[in-house]
Amino acid sequence: MIETPYLLFLGDAPDPLAAKVAQGIRDWRPDSALGQLRLPGCGADLGLPDMSLAEARAAGARTLVIGVANRGGVISTAWKDVLIAALEMGYDLASGLHNLLRDEGDLVAAAQTHGGTLHDVRVPTVGYPIANGRKRSGKRVLAVGTDCSVGKMYTALALDAAMRERGMKSTFRATGQTGILITGHGVPLDAVIADFMAGSVEYLTPDNDPDHWDIIEGQGSLFHVSYSGVTLALIHGGQPDALILSHEPTRTHMRGLPDYTLPSLKALRDTALPLARVANPACQVVGVSVNTKALGEDEALRCLAEIEKRMGLPAIDPFRQGAGRLAEALAAL
Amino acid sequence: MIETPYLLFLGDAPDPLAAKVAQGIRDWRPDSALGQLRLPGCGADLGLPDMSLAEARAAGARTLVIGVANRGGVISTAWKDVLIAALEMGYDLASGLHNLLRDEGDLVAAAQTHGGTLHDVRVPTVGYPIANGRKRSGKRVLAVGTDCSVGKMYTALALDAAMRERGMKSTFRATGQTGILITGHGVPLDAVIADFMAGSVEYLTPDNDPDHWDIIEGQGSLFHVSYSGVTLALIHGGQPDALILSHEPTRTHMRGLPDYTLPSLKALRDTALPLARVANPACQVVGVSVNTKALGEDEALRCLAEIEKRMGLPAIDPFRQGAGRLAEALAAL
Repeated sequence: MIETPYLLFLGDAPDPLAAKVAQGIRDWRPDSALGQLRLPGCGADLGLPDMSLAEARAAGARTLVIGVANRGGVISTAWKDVLIAALEMGYDLASGLHNLLRDEGDLVAAAQTHGGTLHDVRVPTVGYPIANGRKRSGKRVLAVGTDCSVGKMYTALALDAAMRERGMKSTFRATGQTGILITGHGVPLDAVIADFMAGSVEYLTPDNDPDHWDIIEGQGSLFHVSYSGVTLALIHGGQPDALILSHEPTRTHMRGLPDYTLPSLKALRDTALPLARVANPACQVVGVSVNTKALGEDEALRCLAEIEKRMGLPAIDPFRQGAGRLAEALAAL
Repeated sequence: MIETPYLLFLGDAPDPLAAKVAQGIRDWRPDSALGQLRLPGCGADLGLPDMSLAEARAAGARTLVIGVANRGGVISTAWKDVLIAALEMGYDLASGLHNLLRDEGDLVAAAQTHGGTLHDVRVPTVGYPIANGRKRSGKRVLAVGTDCSVGKMYTALALDAAMRERGMKSTFRATGQTGILITGHGVPLDAVIADFMAGSVEYLTPDNDPDHWDIIEGQGSLFHVSYSGVTLALIHGGQPDALILSHEPTRTHMRGLPDYTLPSLKALRDTALPLARVANPACQVVGVSVNTKALGEDEALRCLAEIEKRMGLPAIDPFRQGAGRLAEALAAL
């Protein structure tokens, strides 16, 4: 559990895209985002108050979150002074970079001296169990994609927001670095040892109130040969009551695999649903989430209408429309 | 690569079952099994020459293999004298125990002093790549099970033997501890980090002669919720040209999961084949391997005949009959 509120460190991010992690925190957990800290030359601006370490600390900030992905994932020397000063002031640090905080001797030393915690969210810190497959109380929903990176995390976060608006009980369950930094906890599933993948998802989504929904962040795709095993572990460890199909309609081949075409939404449904029913025979497909970012508004709406008709399921773009119709489909289950 | 030939250390194995790993090496790689070393009270006997460390070393033994699974997977003090003496004589050590050789300070020290290698085959020693999905030359066959522990490794080893007898080119590709100790190399798949599972299988089964078969050791089951992700990574990383369905007909529920029933062989076929065709559209199911150990001879033969008729595929028990018919099915592909 990463302590909030956060001061978001944007460093010397060359452009807004490099600060995507910080932007996700600002968008989805605005209460956790007290302010931003930028170095000279920073090309990103989240529209949050610019604060020094001391100002944010005085305002209650607990953790300095590295909200920027720099080239190569390394912790630059330009950042070191800030990170060490933060530890000296009593901050914890949190990072999703490949280059781990814990591998930097000076940061480790400063953390030890000042009692701070270094959160490397890429690295599992729990000894997860092997999955036992026992039916858990409460309900769970998972987005499965025709491909990787089609908007599953965004869909899950938008669904969580829509369910809360409606007074439904829901919890977003992060399974990736960005999701973990946004919510402060979760399982970095792609870094878990094979034997414990499904068990880590069971651990992440324990027994809950009968009317509570865990919204599990999806990963990979059953049709993406590099990561499909992670996806199946999510389906079997998560034992979802509901699946959402996620798709990006303009993609010409599977991400990173030029020789692989995307499956149809029907093929995804017909593959994912029987596998999900191994763990939860009551599982249903409740809707389709389409990332229409590459389309104009009219084209996007036509695309959504066509998919809705073809699939016989609500089809929405959560970025354009919010995920209200998916929340209602879950409420009606 | 673990250097051969081996001296097989049976320690104080209470019964033959505890020496299953050593028995697998004797059965499948007899050329590698120079002799056995037993401590007082050992209840296992492989029928190999009993040899002292010095005798086996003089006869050319290179590695002392811990061929016994003791309770709790720990390296007992009763073994330590032997293991250290072996290192002093120039042996390497190999082990599949949970308790790693490398975590024992005295073994590490002796290995360093005498230049020996400690092979903990449970631990990956390679930085595997992320799978790239590129079509590789050569052919591959994989056994997929209705459940875990239904005889997939035995099937693969028997198939390898049958193919060699027929002059076909084949290589058994180990993905588990026992298989790695039997053949001296492989990938301990259940210990690989999630993101690299499929890539480790690609690494294990590289480009090869067009008429060469990799016989990939199966793991888990698509229907076993604890391990299904590992199985799908094998299917997508292995890009098999042929699948064999493996089954144990008397099992009443999935191994370790009392609330889960086994799928039918047809359900297994209809689930595994479309998934395999994502990575290799030409993949075929070529036969069924049935573990009939719990049945009498007549009952076993009736069971095999019934499955053969129902599935329209050769159905054999490799333990009773060898895997010749499966080898022929592959040759006919």
